[in-house]
Amino acid sequence: MGSHVRMCAMTFIERCQLAWQQQDSLLCVGLDPELSRLPTAVKAAGTTLDQVRAFCIGVVEATAAHACAFKPQIAHFAALGAESVLADVCHHIKQHHPQHVLILDSKRGDIGSTAQHYASEAFDRYGADAVTLNPYMGTDSLQPFLDRTDKGIFVLCRTSNPGGDEFQMQTLASGERLFEKVATTAQQKWNARGQGGLVVGATYPTEIATVRALAPDLPLLVPGIGAQGGDLVATVKAGMTLGQNPAGLFINSSRAILYASGGDDWQQAARAEAHRTQLAISQAAQAAG
Amino acid sequence: MGSHVRMCAMTFIERCQLAWQQQDSLLCVGLDPELSRLPTAVKAAGTTLDQVRAFCIGVVEATAAHACAFKPQIAHFAALGAESVLADVCHHIKQHHPQHVLILDSKRGDIGSTAQHYASEAFDRYGADAVTLNPYMGTDSLQPFLDRTDKGIFVLCRTSNPGGDEFQMQTLASGERLFEKVATTAQQKWNARGQGGLVVGATYPTEIATVRALAPDLPLLVPGIGAQGGDLVATVKAGMTLGQNPAGLFINSSRAILYASGGDDWQQAARAEAHRTQLAISQAAQAAG
Repeated sequence: MGSHVRMCAMTFIERCQLAWQQQDSLLCVGLDPELSRLPTAVKAAGTTLDQVRAFCIGVVEATAAHACAFKPQIAHFAALGAESVLADVCHHIKQHHPQHVLILDSKRGDIGSTAQHYASEAFDRYGADAVTLNPYMGTDSLQPFLDRTDKGIFVLCRTSNPGGDEFQMQTLASGERLFEKVATTAQQKWNARGQGGLVVGATYPTEIATVRALAPDLPLLVPGIGAQGGDLVATVKAGMTLGQNPAGLFINSSRAILYASGGDDWQQAARAEAHRTQLAISQAAQAAG
Repeated sequence: MGSHVRMCAMTFIERCQLAWQQQDSLLCVGLDPELSRLPTAVKAAGTTLDQVRAFCIGVVEATAAHACAFKPQIAHFAALGAESVLADVCHHIKQHHPQHVLILDSKRGDIGSTAQHYASEAFDRYGADAVTLNPYMGTDSLQPFLDRTDKGIFVLCRTSNPGGDEFQMQTLASGERLFEKVATTAQQKWNARGQGGLVVGATYPTEIATVRALAPDLPLLVPGIGAQGGDLVATVKAGMTLGQNPAGLFINSSRAILYASGGDDWQQAARAEAHRTQLAISQAAQAAG
């Protein structure tokens, strides 16, 4: 109980720092269940929802020792009508792995009165520690999430999909590019209580370095390692904050871990891939430091 | 059955035009159920989910004659764990009011492989005709929605919340403001098959006119009439496209209609407010034309 009380009193960034240190890992395991890719053994049992639940919890149990965070992607559950499974998986993580940071990847963004409902979805219904958000509607659309002072937000900044350039790389009259203005705004306006974070794709290490310079204090959530093939050493060097231990990054891998094997060894294969990624990140951090 | 086949063969913009003409209305009724504001009579019966279902379907039945579209806002359902109710309400609208355009207001935006799941959520699970989307991640994040060639997208362009200025009004090196670039991109890249639309708040009629000039063919979804108090005549004049009938706009009102009365007359009050708004829009269109 004592540790629970202490958890509640921590800021979100302190929560992140504790997870990085206790787990000795910067790896975030993304939970993106795809029915067509479930292991054969999982597909054999129960309803579709049972299969998705067993798969996600199986991956959590296989990889928790090597990860500091889990990031369920809500669309993968919503398309299946599996919100109840997402809730089960989130509650499992909170109960059995309370030191891990639980990031709901939903990329929400709406006006304040509606954003309150999305905040309730993320933090009350699913119990997430943090949520991914879209900056297009501005600060007041993020405020209901920031009003939950023990929670974190990861705001889309620079994404590595092909269309990511289209608006994010536009140069503004001020000389900044749009993603740089988002990073600066995050540092200045969204992190007063250690709640701010940014999403920056691993495909562009130079731009991760730019974001890190503009937002020196913020944790960065970096998708694109693993299946998407970003350069790990360059990513870690560009994005980590140096202290006693490497910190500042949640390096996400989803498909490379989830679908490491479709056979009976799917959990062992997921664990091995998570361990391999954890070590590769640590080596990259040592090389960068 | 013949009309169903014909519906499927229409483009989304033809579907909109038919709704505007058949209903003689540009009014979109937003379905944003708030537990704390449900009419007393509704609150008296059944479970919370039963109450939300009865309220939404009651509003649909009360207002359908005066509206051309319905726009359920998904966060209001998600925060309650009421996705099954949202599905029931959507299926009710599709079954009983097939001429109305059903717009799922979820403001999604993610990379392509995930966006496919959000498209499935909107179009398969809920049967929506169109969905609201966020442009920040660029064209490829919208593509899975456009691949559903009979469906429409309404992309956030200029929003009327206080923070809407923060990024949307940034002037780019090209001289355009960001929301203008979104409008131009929508016209040029997202409307090849009559599927594109934009969300533009009613608070800024001048900017609606700007968007209309840049995107002459696209339907505009305009929140901010009613409770939010935008200027109706200026909005309609700025945004409508002229033909035989006023067209080009879905003017949304949510709270002013939904919560017109909390008493036993809630359906009559919702109907009266919808009718009043329909007429006010028509008069504004006549004044503008």
